[in-house]
Amino acid sequence: MRPSGRANDELRELSFTRNYTVHAEGSVLVAFGNTKVLCTASVEEGVPRFLKGKGQGWLTAEYGMLPRSTHTRSGREASRGKQGGRTLEIQRLIGRSLRAAVDLSKLGERTIYLDCDVLQADGGTRTASISGACVALVDAFTHLLETKKIKDDPLNGLVGAVSVGVYKDTPVLDLDYAEDSNAGTDMNVVMTQQGGFIEIQGSAEGAPFTREQSDTLLGLAEKGINEIIKAQQDALGW
Amino acid sequence: MRPSGRANDELRELSFTRNYTVHAEGSVLVAFGNTKVLCTASVEEGVPRFLKGKGQGWLTAEYGMLPRSTHTRSGREASRGKQGGRTLEIQRLIGRSLRAAVDLSKLGERTIYLDCDVLQADGGTRTASISGACVALVDAFTHLLETKKIKDDPLNGLVGAVSVGVYKDTPVLDLDYAEDSNAGTDMNVVMTQQGGFIEIQGSAEGAPFTREQSDTLLGLAEKGINEIIKAQQDALGW
Amino acid sequence: MRPSGRANDELRELSFTRNYTVHAEGSVLVAFGNTKVLCTASVEEGVPRFLKGKGQGWLTAEYGMLPRSTHTRSGREASRGKQGGRTLEIQRLIGRSLRAAVDLSKLGERTIYLDCDVLQADGGTRTASISGACVALVDAFTHLLETKKIKDDPLNGLVGAVSVGVYKDTPVLDLDYAEDSNAGTDMNVVMTQQGGFIEIQGSAEGAPFTREQSDTLLGLAEKGINEIIKAQQDALGW
Amino acid sequence: MRPSGRANDELRELSFTRNYTVHAEGSVLVAFGNTKVLCTASVEEGVPRFLKGKGQGWLTAEYGMLPRSTHTRSGREASRGKQGGRTLEIQRLIGRSLRAAVDLSKLGERTIYLDCDVLQADGGTRTASISGACVALVDAFTHLLETKKIKDDPLNGLVGAVSVGVYKDTPVLDLDYAEDSNAGTDMNVVMTQQGGFIEIQGSAEGAPFTREQSDTLLGLAEKGINEIIKAQQDALGW
Amino acid sequence: MRPSGRANDELRELSFTRNYTVHAEGSVLVAFGNTKVLCTASVEEGVPRFLKGKGQGWLTAEYGMLPRSTHTRSGREASRGKQGGRTLEIQRLIGRSLRAAVDLSKLGERTIYLDCDVLQADGGTRTASISGACVALVDAFTHLLETKKIKDDPLNGLVGAVSVGVYKDTPVLDLDYAEDSNAGTDMNVVMTQQGGFIEIQGSAEGAPFTREQSDTLLGLAEKGINEIIKAQQDALGW
Amino acid sequence: MRPSGRANDELRELSFTRNYTVHAEGSVLVAFGNTKVLCTASVEEGVPRFLKGKGQGWLTAEYGMLPRSTHTRSGREASRGKQGGRTLEIQRLIGRSLRAAVDLSKLGERTIYLDCDVLQADGGTRTASISGACVALVDAFTHLLETKKIKDDPLNGLVGAVSVGVYKDTPVLDLDYAEDSNAGTDMNVVMTQQGGFIEIQGSAEGAPFTREQSDTLLGLAEKGINEIIKAQQDALGW
Repeated sequence: MRPSGRANDELRELSFTRNYTVHAEGSVLVAFGNTKVLCTASVEEGVPRFLKGKGQGWLTAEYGMLPRSTHTRSGREASRGKQGGRTLEIQRLIGRSLRAAVDLSKLGERTIYLDCDVLQADGGTRTASISGACVALVDAFTHLLETKKIKDDPLNGLVGAVSVGVYKDTPVLDLDYAEDSNAGTDMNVVMTQQGGFIEIQGSAEGAPFTREQSDTLLGLAEKGINEIIKAQQDALGW
Repeated sequence: MRPSGRANDELRELSFTRNYTVHAEGSVLVAFGNTKVLCTASVEEGVPRFLKGKGQGWLTAEYGMLPRSTHTRSGREASRGKQGGRTLEIQRLIGRSLRAAVDLSKLGERTIYLDCDVLQADGGTRTASISGACVALVDAFTHLLETKKIKDDPLNGLVGAVSVGVYKDTPVLDLDYAEDSNAGTDMNVVMTQQGGFIEIQGSAEGAPFTREQSDTLLGLAEKGINEIIKAQQDALGW
Repeated sequence: MRPSGRANDELRELSFTRNYTVHAEGSVLVAFGNTKVLCTASVEEGVPRFLKGKGQGWLTAEYGMLPRSTHTRSGREASRGKQGGRTLEIQRLIGRSLRAAVDLSKLGERTIYLDCDVLQADGGTRTASISGACVALVDAFTHLLETKKIKDDPLNGLVGAVSVGVYKDTPVLDLDYAEDSNAGTDMNVVMTQQGGFIEIQGSAEGAPFTREQSDTLLGLAEKGINEIIKAQQDALGW
Repeated sequence: MRPSGRANDELRELSFTRNYTVHAEGSVLVAFGNTKVLCTASVEEGVPRFLKGKGQGWLTAEYGMLPRSTHTRSGREASRGKQGGRTLEIQRLIGRSLRAAVDLSKLGERTIYLDCDVLQADGGTRTASISGACVALVDAFTHLLETKKIKDDPLNGLVGAVSVGVYKDTPVLDLDYAEDSNAGTDMNVVMTQQGGFIEIQGSAEGAPFTREQSDTLLGLAEKGINEIIKAQQDALGW
Repeated sequence: MRPSGRANDELRELSFTRNYTVHAEGSVLVAFGNTKVLCTASVEEGVPRFLKGKGQGWLTAEYGMLPRSTHTRSGREASRGKQGGRTLEIQRLIGRSLRAAVDLSKLGERTIYLDCDVLQADGGTRTASISGACVALVDAFTHLLETKKIKDDPLNGLVGAVSVGVYKDTPVLDLDYAEDSNAGTDMNVVMTQQGGFIEIQGSAEGAPFTREQSDTLLGLAEKGINEIIKAQQDALGW
Repeated sequence: MRPSGRANDELRELSFTRNYTVHAEGSVLVAFGNTKVLCTASVEEGVPRFLKGKGQGWLTAEYGMLPRSTHTRSGREASRGKQGGRTLEIQRLIGRSLRAAVDLSKLGERTIYLDCDVLQADGGTRTASISGACVALVDAFTHLLETKKIKDDPLNGLVGAVSVGVYKDTPVLDLDYAEDSNAGTDMNVVMTQQGGFIEIQGSAEGAPFTREQSDTLLGLAEKGINEIIKAQQDALGW
């Protein structure tokens, strides 16, 4: 029995609120249950030095948690003077996942910054960030197309992400904090709309896991991500 | 004529949304028109070293802007590795202003962290932060009283803040970004519920200003802050 | 009765020693009683990136306290690896105040660095810094005029600054450390030679203050700054 | 055909040189072909603050590359003033992987530092680090047992790691740099001696991958890690 | 012929102004010609962690140059966020040199901070710093003796320092900037009142130097330091 | 009697292993007894900004100790976020010493990075670094000559370095850690193949030393460095 009473293959209530803030080219508040992340996509002319003159664009991501998005306050990274290892790991994952969804050659010499800021955390902030940032990215591409800055849509397809894990010996979908902090195995999975995997990151928190368990978890994740991508499409009016 | 069509002594639409997030002892989304700041009050046991053993509490504030809360994206301070001068100046102002509203000796050896994170900026983020943080602080004190951690309410009274300035030679109340970026003089004022000033910070952006102008601006600020404090009271159900 | 025996509207002994060091284009040791600040104005060709190609100059300020300028030694900021919030706040104030005294379009694409380093502190270091830096700035402009690097004097007029405050319920001028550390209200005021205000920064340290008190303090500051500007003129041989 | 001429399921030449340096409790130079990493295990009395008084130990890892371990020199992280995201990600992975191999309650209030410094890089530095650090860890435990500091061996079993990937549409084992920089999918796998997975980190570098491909890659990894663990046992004389 | 017209074994005009600032236990402005350094000695109760409970004191030094102490302005280290290598090297030298002059066991568990801040630079700032800091240190010890905090004078004897070098093939004493920036060999020497060497740091800037040249330079340094120590004694009224 | 049983003028066993790693243009593992340092010379096109367009090259050095190269583990500088004073002092010394061995005008607009990373420390790491880096530098110059990037060998001659000191009142050559940590005087000496001194850095750790002792130590150093340069020549097959 899950603490939330959900079925083992049941997602938390999902929502994607577009245009949540007014300045960004894409701005989405994504909620996976009580986990709420503000994802903005910002377009800037120019690319990093290593890409200059190659005629292609770039996409990068930054992640942060507001100090009191969590049960107990955690120190502000800006004040401590550096981003922690977990933050860097997550923002590298977000960037890699979304770059896989984009044909950068269609973007021109532009950079997309995806900022994922966690307003409230209840487990799964990195997968919510990826899923929400993808919708913000679509809105930014639409903006570029409508303002005629680009001709072809750079999006290869939507990308969704979810966590799965073994909670009390049972594989479950979309772990909340109560489950995540007690899970034996925890896996974050990123998939495309077409059904291919972009990232699989599985960790045994306690006992090691087997190839069969890994496969079962991937199956659960597939089901969940398909629902997430459906919700993205609904939010986008597709 | 103001860009927003407001009267010279008219505030933007104000709102204080309490319990905006679930974990903090106080959590308020304050909106001054399009300026939206999430203010949380977090209670931690213990005080900084310089106060240990003195039997009193402490209150401190931190301020941040999400990278795309502004018209163009500004670099994330956590990523740049330090908080800028403007950030430090603002969070020192917020802390000083709210400490003036509190009897720290009634708090016990506890620290209140006020985190003011700007989700969307349209001028006046520091005064919105002070006004919103005050409501979050009241909720945190209520929490401490209800859980019997303290016996007497440490609040001396509510505190509100507003900006005033000279826009096109006319003194106006509660400048939005369009006004602020063109104002000749800009003044931030913090006042108590009882009508006393806590902070006055006036800067001539272009031409210097006179003692008479200063006095007129303070009068406008008094009117605005009284309305802000009324809105705080309404939000608190007082 | 003030600890120093001064009248309520009496400045400390003032001095501006020009050419205090040999390398800088302007170099002034300013003393407000026991507060002594070395202010240098350095001219560099070129402007910050955001001003390139606009045909105007720039002026910026940096402030520091020698570790043992104070009663007890405070850690060296260079060694701690960052400038504190108070330092950044003060150097922003100095820069803003002096920029208001200068017509940057007459400077050409040059940057003036004003370095204010406190050799000995006894209250009022920020207002002494502004007042001394103004004299160093005049000397640097004279140097630029004499070496024919510029044609017109960029100075709009002299700028002076002083602190005022409420000490033992009495408004007093030019607080020393003994008064400053016990003042109920503390206000720093920056004014031009022509009598206009550039900056007013008032803080209630204990009880809030009223509009009338604010006005009284501004009056005291006007008197003091007029005397400071007279002393600047004497030092400059005007 | 692989650039090195190896069979698809063939590891590079493996070696574990124990006692490579003299001071550390465990010191192993691990070579996966041309990838060479010096792994030391250092024992220190005491644990981090969050574990104090809980009667258990801690294990943490740090990773670094010598500036010219790579084809072109990369800047020294100590000189740049911070560790990059990739470094932090890898050292978090090493620490997590080895903690899974240890019963920390048998270690007493001690901390093991695993330092993995890459002397020469040719792909697979993180998996070589994990495999080498495990041998250094065993030597450190032997030292603690022989000096009677602990009574029971904290090791749950050996841990090995290898990278697998899809190179020119073919799943291959233990990618070298020539393969890694051209791989379509790249997966790092950590396994215990008993055959359970501790970590799976798979990324699509180009095209997404399927559940079947993931399973094939895990099979290859199992074969490779079993051989690596055999080599660890030989090196340890087990 | 030296640019200054001095004889080859002639020091610049020397002065030690005691009590230059009011707060520090020792405060000396030392001038070696145009090189002027403010040296303060501050006494703090307590010692660094590695000395706690050993019943002895500690002495450490910090060095800084005001940004415009030099011909062209150099960036403020506090603002750049770190002390440069030259600064660290010099402050380590100052600390080592003065610790050699002190019996730390007579100091009790106290720390002496020697702050050497260069107001104006014209070559030889490090040797002026050592020579000036020694006088400040004597004043701090006198203060500790007079306030009965210590019983025995911890000073082993005075310490002086000077630079010597080969300028236009001629060994000369006490190089100023014009000489220093063109010297073939540059040597900094620290000696005690009793005539023993504490530090010798010689560098060939162009051609290497011989053992004979080294010996000649040491002879010049001995002469110069004896005069410096005489000047210290005069300043101290010994 | 020395702890190692060596004669007073006897070096430890010396070795220079060239081509220790594969990527660098020069890569040498130098051993002075148990002190082992990996020295690489890396060639990069381009020079620092202050040399641009002057048609000459540059040479710089960086130094680091692996955390467990020492008896007890020391914190990783990359993780602490800055290089310590000792590190900066040593790498400045290495760079200065090797620049003295090179005619930078023959290098073209190229930069040589010398990285000296201590794998195992037993005293004398800075002198071993200089001696080893010189051999790596020769290999890098050979590479540049063979690939026709430069026409003339920039090497002025080999450079060697050794420490000497007073151990139990006796001058000894090439101090190991057991001696170094108890030495009364410690001197690091850098010399050219032609017999000239490049650097002399002598410190009294306890009692000051005399001019005669200094001369005796220099004589010992000459003998030792001549042997070191002979070993460099043997390793280079000269």
